[in-house]
Amino acid sequence: MQKRPIQDYYPDETAVCYGCGRNNPDGLHIQTHWDGEEGVCRFTPKPHHTAFPGFVYGGLVASLIDCHSMGTAIAAAYQAAGRDPDTEPEITCVTGSLNVRYLRPTPAGVELVLRSRVTRMDEKKATVVTSVYADGVECVSGEVVAVRVPSRMMRR
Amino acid sequence: MQKRPIQDYYPDETAVCYGCGRNNPDGLHIQTHWDGEEGVCRFTPKPHHTAFPGFVYGGLVASLIDCHSMGTAIAAAYQAAGRDPDTEPEITCVTGSLNVRYLRPTPAGVELVLRSRVTRMDEKKATVVTSVYADGVECVSGEVVAVRVPSRMMRR
Repeated sequence: MQKRPIQDYYPDETAVCYGCGRNNPDGLHIQTHWDGEEGVCRFTPKPHHTAFPGFVYGGLVASLIDCHSMGTAIAAAYQAAGRDPDTEPEITCVTGSLNVRYLRPTPAGVELVLRSRVTRMDEKKATVVTSVYADGVECVSGEVVAVRVPSRMMRR
Repeated sequence: MQKRPIQDYYPDETAVCYGCGRNNPDGLHIQTHWDGEEGVCRFTPKPHHTAFPGFVYGGLVASLIDCHSMGTAIAAAYQAAGRDPDTEPEITCVTGSLNVRYLRPTPAGVELVLRSRVTRMDEKKATVVTSVYADGVECVSGEVVAVRVPSRMMRR
């Protein structure tokens, strides 16, 4: 298991993502821990992240899957390249597609655990599948395509 | 065009959704206006809803698609039943699946317009397709399956 989440290695100027940017003070601060095979994220939703009484907002769970899948894809790509994430050149991705299945309502008030694996990867993109557990029960599943980009510093 | 957004008709006790609940003071307050054929949502992301500098967080856009698709499905279902949304029994839905394709980065600083249509509907579920526009350019598309439930007041 890497000691630090992969998001700690994102460059300062692009680490402003609402979902996972350490430099976004208003953000969710989603963190991905890569153990060499699997990306693991733990997140406890806030009380206001409600869908309906007692259950977690699906859009929040989709956001967790999104950022955590990117983090998993990036960590796996560094590993495939035989490099640590603090080496140059930077490897980064943006989300191409995000598919989420809500298997059952996600209960509020408990820590959610996301487990993600890369099922396909080449130099252009990666597919990441995720299961989201609450109290050990899978509530949501996701499949995300991460697209490699040279940098997140884009021009409009 | 209905004068009030469909979310104004959700029952008080379940109108706590972080995405679209009028009774969630910390929420996004997504609103769906149904014109008889199409659901329209207008939303201007906050400055902290960043993905990377200059662009909108994809998880926010997924959340907009989610709640607005539910609103569109519910409005269309009332219309199909020949009833106004302030009549009993309540028609409501939860999200079964949420598929989002990011066609291009969504620019920050402009109002987003979501246009949704119901492409399939029966008594159990509806499929809603959505295009998200910024400055008139489609940036994101979505397909959501809305599942009819008797009520959002569920028990764990």
